[in-house]
Amino acid sequence: MTPAQSAMLADLARTIDAKAIVTDADAIVPWATDWRDRYRGRAPVLLQPSSTTQVATIVTAAARHRVPLVAQGGNSSMVGGATPPADGSALILSLRRMDRIRSLDADAGFAVAEAGVILANLHEAAIAAGRRFPLTLGARGSATIGGLVSTNAGGTQVLRFGSMRGLVAGIEAVFADGSIHDGLAPLKKDNRGYDLTQLLVGAEGTLGIVTAATLRLVTLPTVRAAAWAGTDGPESALRLLRRCQAATDALESFEILPRESLDAVLAHVPGTRSPLAAAHRWHLLIETTDPRGAEQLEELLSTALADGLIADATIAASDAQIADFWRIRDSISDAERAMGPASQHDISVPVEAMPGFMIAAAAACEARFPGTHASGFGHLGDGNIHFHVRAAAGTDAGRWYRDAVPDVTRFVDDLVVAAGGSIAAEHGIGQMKIDELERLASPARLHALRGVKAAMDPLAILNPGKLVRLASPPATQ
Amino acid sequence: MTPAQSAMLADLARTIDAKAIVTDADAIVPWATDWRDRYRGRAPVLLQPSSTTQVATIVTAAARHRVPLVAQGGNSSMVGGATPPADGSALILSLRRMDRIRSLDADAGFAVAEAGVILANLHEAAIAAGRRFPLTLGARGSATIGGLVSTNAGGTQVLRFGSMRGLVAGIEAVFADGSIHDGLAPLKKDNRGYDLTQLLVGAEGTLGIVTAATLRLVTLPTVRAAAWAGTDGPESALRLLRRCQAATDALESFEILPRESLDAVLAHVPGTRSPLAAAHRWHLLIETTDPRGAEQLEELLSTALADGLIADATIAASDAQIADFWRIRDSISDAERAMGPASQHDISVPVEAMPGFMIAAAAACEARFPGTHASGFGHLGDGNIHFHVRAAAGTDAGRWYRDAVPDVTRFVDDLVVAAGGSIAAEHGIGQMKIDELERLASPARLHALRGVKAAMDPLAILNPGKLVRLASPPATQ
Repeated sequence: MTPAQSAMLADLARTIDAKAIVTDADAIVPWATDWRDRYRGRAPVLLQPSSTTQVATIVTAAARHRVPLVAQGGNSSMVGGATPPADGSALILSLRRMDRIRSLDADAGFAVAEAGVILANLHEAAIAAGRRFPLTLGARGSATIGGLVSTNAGGTQVLRFGSMRGLVAGIEAVFADGSIHDGLAPLKKDNRGYDLTQLLVGAEGTLGIVTAATLRLVTLPTVRAAAWAGTDGPESALRLLRRCQAATDALESFEILPRESLDAVLAHVPGTRSPLAAAHRWHLLIETTDPRGAEQLEELLSTALADGLIADATIAASDAQIADFWRIRDSISDAERAMGPASQHDISVPVEAMPGFMIAAAAACEARFPGTHASGFGHLGDGNIHFHVRAAAGTDAGRWYRDAVPDVTRFVDDLVVAAGGSIAAEHGIGQMKIDELERLASPARLHALRGVKAAMDPLAILNPGKLVRLASPPATQ
Repeated sequence: MTPAQSAMLADLARTIDAKAIVTDADAIVPWATDWRDRYRGRAPVLLQPSSTTQVATIVTAAARHRVPLVAQGGNSSMVGGATPPADGSALILSLRRMDRIRSLDADAGFAVAEAGVILANLHEAAIAAGRRFPLTLGARGSATIGGLVSTNAGGTQVLRFGSMRGLVAGIEAVFADGSIHDGLAPLKKDNRGYDLTQLLVGAEGTLGIVTAATLRLVTLPTVRAAAWAGTDGPESALRLLRRCQAATDALESFEILPRESLDAVLAHVPGTRSPLAAAHRWHLLIETTDPRGAEQLEELLSTALADGLIADATIAASDAQIADFWRIRDSISDAERAMGPASQHDISVPVEAMPGFMIAAAAACEARFPGTHASGFGHLGDGNIHFHVRAAAGTDAGRWYRDAVPDVTRFVDDLVVAAGGSIAAEHGIGQMKIDELERLASPARLHALRGVKAAMDPLAILNPGKLVRLASPPATQ
């Protein structure tokens, strides 16, 4: 522990309860490394406050002693966004004990959830009140509201209700000087200056510590219908997507995956089977909650079949079959991992440009890195795919990650920028993409990001080394 | 003209065309005063660039010579947000010549419009392409996209599609150092750091000059139905609103007005007549584009009548009758002006709190300022009303505005803050509310606003004296 850290802890020992201060190394270790074991950090102390006041006390002490804090929820970041630096200079600030749903108003359609509330628990609470919180993703059993807000999380149901940004109606946060910002009131119209709520969404804990959020709830759907279709390519898929969107406002998911993704799942995930009899180059998973349900979906797909946009399709006959469809979709990452090392890219381009990008980028990668196999799968309707470049068979994993992945990453990111896209679609920047953001962002954007960071966190104590580096480090005490 | 202004103009004379530099005082005067003639400013020069590059050239010169710029679109601000200061220190930067719709993609549902595009022209272009830009307001014939974005404009159709913030998918802007930020790509998912688009929406031209925006278009409704209803009060109205929202996702407007607002219109606006035969304490204007149209509306209103939520209702039999309903609603401000001086407040509280607030705030104002008459009308569904306190009959207008309005404003604003609301709902802060924002915002909020302003505009050349003042003025050259 550094002298500054010791001094800070001495301050805290006088002001907050002992349970909030964890110094047992064994208890800290699991939280100092990200869940995929790609970023190994070290932290001498893990702080776990139980209230916003305690968070404010901690941040005030951190500012006083200039000790950096790394805010953490479920530790499910895909970009090392919640892992402390390896030098032990920072403390982990875990929000998990703040796990109360403070209020839930079904009529008004709002819930106020603390940062440590686990997504699945919010889902349950909303359903119990006859409402729905419509954002969901694979990590729903561990991801917390604070983390989801701070990373502007996406997932598989963004098409209709948007990402976290669109679902956050208010935020309570502790700023870098320890002051509490109370912005929880769910005001539909509020023009009192710059939107601090939207500024904190997606800021990855670098501008303030989100302690609670007011979240929108929507009506519970009465009908749910899903289809699985085979198609010749993303271009046809996009045309079908536009038809579906013209026919209903209730299209919830429109996911695309190539044959090799399906094959990987069928080969590596026990109990899965292909929804369609014949093989198809590309597959679609479409879900809607339109009251017209399966009937409407069948009509749309029949016409698409007649017009050659799809080659075959099946509509789920039960909720169990819908779950089977989603099990395939949700298993792709695991299944592909079993097939060997890959370079994975969470990227977006304008939706209209996605079909062309998927084909051209895969071809370009395979040409540039002989022996690799490239393909994308995911959220076609959001213009967001997970683009994976798999190493040639027999490649040593260690060497691949060390030598090839950085080159592949730069190559893919250049293609994304050329297509007017984003190198960080739904997983954020964290520490994984901070160099690429600096390399590729326009000077105007980078200057603005750094300016806002310096203004909101002048001592650089909030999640340093994530999202953006300051142009010049703060003066030392 | 100050020496700095002259030097800046000498720079510009070499780099941009003469048409972009207006120095004729008569041509400038109409743009130096706000449309309601409440703020009289002065500017020796009006700059009217025709391209983003020209805007960048102008801002670069302004930064070099430290000459403040006041960005202006249709000059329809309600809070003096686009009026230059009276001392002539700033130049007007008019975006009106940048009036091109650069692209409109009906399939993708996006239009890229330059800052000077007039809202009504965007409406027409969208309709011509079979789409709809769903934000509208009284000033649609003069308000420009740049101003609407920069003020996060609201209006009468916010209920379903949100205010401007929800409709902006990307922004091109010139930052205070003259650099161009190209954020126009319509990416549905983009987590490359702080959301600069959302930061610029509602920033009132104090963080950058918005030169173009990518705007969402929605499907054109096939059905439009509207009803006028009489009810005993806002509490019943809110219950009806919740029923309507549970029955349809396509509720577009839910406006409330007290009897005195209707009476004012009937008395002062020729050709208007009451939609209902009997007198009611409160009136509602409800509009939907649900495919079930008038039939669904009739069903909802019949049940509401049976349950006592409304006392009477009529459904518009034609588009002309819908227009008549809206004519009443849109004439309230003019009609009330004809009734004598008033103190007007554009405020919001959480929707659930609005019925109680409307009754209690009116009573509190009338008790505190004897002889006045207070009432609110407007967007009940958004938790946003225009709350007017009318002077006692015979009050001298000059004296009322000078002596009474500041007191009334502080009194009303205190009530709003106590109800967890916003003193600036849809009209912004501008110069009208800057003192009240400083008085009432929490230290945390004010500190954050000032920090962001100082970071993005360190020389304070962008719309100074609007929205927020810097804690300390920038060092002079």
